[in-house]
Amino acid sequence: MINASQIAIIGTGLLGASTGLALKAAGYAGRVVGIGRRLDTARRAVAVGACDAAAVDFAVVADCQLAVIAVPLSGFDAVFQQLAAHDHDALVITDVGSTKLDVVEKANRYLPAPARFIGAHPMAGSERTGPDAATADLFQHKPCIICKDERSDPDAAEQVEALWRAVGCQLLHMDPLEHDRATAVTSHLPHAVASLLVLVAEQLGGFEVASTGFTGATRLASGGPDMRADLMHANAPRLADALAALSGQIDAMRDALTSGDHARLLNMLNDAKQRRDAWLSQREQNA
Amino acid sequence: MINASQIAIIGTGLLGASTGLALKAAGYAGRVVGIGRRLDTARRAVAVGACDAAAVDFAVVADCQLAVIAVPLSGFDAVFQQLAAHDHDALVITDVGSTKLDVVEKANRYLPAPARFIGAHPMAGSERTGPDAATADLFQHKPCIICKDERSDPDAAEQVEALWRAVGCQLLHMDPLEHDRATAVTSHLPHAVASLLVLVAEQLGGFEVASTGFTGATRLASGGPDMRADLMHANAPRLADALAALSGQIDAMRDALTSGDHARLLNMLNDAKQRRDAWLSQREQNA
Repeated sequence: MINASQIAIIGTGLLGASTGLALKAAGYAGRVVGIGRRLDTARRAVAVGACDAAAVDFAVVADCQLAVIAVPLSGFDAVFQQLAAHDHDALVITDVGSTKLDVVEKANRYLPAPARFIGAHPMAGSERTGPDAATADLFQHKPCIICKDERSDPDAAEQVEALWRAVGCQLLHMDPLEHDRATAVTSHLPHAVASLLVLVAEQLGGFEVASTGFTGATRLASGGPDMRADLMHANAPRLADALAALSGQIDAMRDALTSGDHARLLNMLNDAKQRRDAWLSQREQNA
Repeated sequence: MINASQIAIIGTGLLGASTGLALKAAGYAGRVVGIGRRLDTARRAVAVGACDAAAVDFAVVADCQLAVIAVPLSGFDAVFQQLAAHDHDALVITDVGSTKLDVVEKANRYLPAPARFIGAHPMAGSERTGPDAATADLFQHKPCIICKDERSDPDAAEQVEALWRAVGCQLLHMDPLEHDRATAVTSHLPHAVASLLVLVAEQLGGFEVASTGFTGATRLASGGPDMRADLMHANAPRLADALAALSGQIDAMRDALTSGDHARLLNMLNDAKQRRDAWLSQREQNA
């Protein structure tokens, strides 16, 4: 169980407010304070039942034993600096950031006791944003990657794991580099490719015959460009590696096509289908 | 209206049987004969109400004024050869093939009077296959690309356009090269990329954190490899060009990432979003 009488949620958008709602739904009996850059947004989180109180001043963390950073990646510098000014020995800090190397690096740079920061990445989201889109079951059955190492405070790690388990996540452990490599391949690369497919269609034409296949393959390209650029920027070296690997696979397929090597083309499609179907059935077994 | 007392549907799978059902639903009063490589499949098309009679022998086309080729791309050589043996002056031929340059080339090679062949590509489909998956509204409001040129018989073109309009399609006109370039970009390229994304994940790892974004971006990779390889093979030069263009876009994004050019990255994502959203809203207006 979570050993905290008061929890601060910093950033009361979709993920922050959903954390509050999920904590309440899980029976957390303590107090949840929402800290927003704008008081309006924090008050909406109170209105939807995600928090008990709204604040803009980080001074309230003096009375909290747990803080969850749920701001966009571009806001982490400012949040860590303000947290550092109000940090205390009983405070455990976690986050929901989609990249981990840069977040951990910032925690080490700004926080007086980075051992009490345990990075997390609950893999949940929605097309909608803001506290009004929050739901108590957003994290239910979703993987949450926990980044702890030998320098981490064991009690802090226990607290953070109890929190993410309480809201419904299934915990996975990875180091930050492992995490960022894996998400570059299966999250940031699909985002990049969706946009690049649209740019190829703009370059070569073809929209007039585009149908359901194209719509599905490019869906992610209609997401918010600012947040997606921040994400890709924060994980730039790993995403660049993943794009290079994709270029290599493209070259292999072009070779098969231009040399008329039908068997090789078929092999590539067969391998991909078998690998994807095996992953899907394994995921179903785990669910 | 369709000026034919009897229509042959060659290949009574999903598309062929759906053509029959749609003709009946549109009030076509003539007779529909389903020709299958296996009599069983043609008889299923009769059982579901798509055809009035089942046959394996092409001799029945002697009494037909219209023939619709609805076999996989790998079957076109054999079908054209058999059609050529039973061709007659009153016969108009069309098809549902997803590539057009190779189909038109085969029509020219095998048929005694290729002017009476008018290639078509009704852009409809389903994950399911076979006559039992056929529906009368499969083609409703779907684009159908018609490939006719100055050598086409005008009466044949009129017949074929009346057929595809009758089953519910919205007609577009393109020459075969234009068609194959456009579908390479918006249909075959997304198919290729879905498979290549899975191969990159196999190469670099990341399945353990793969979530909805990856699932959606790779959905096409679980389709039947044989049919997809035939399709890509039939349109190999255009698909190779589209893959080359994608490589170029990948290089541009990698440059932006590795040089830390955040503005350029954001521009690419913004361009793609604007272009996709504009296309979607235009498509809705046309619907």
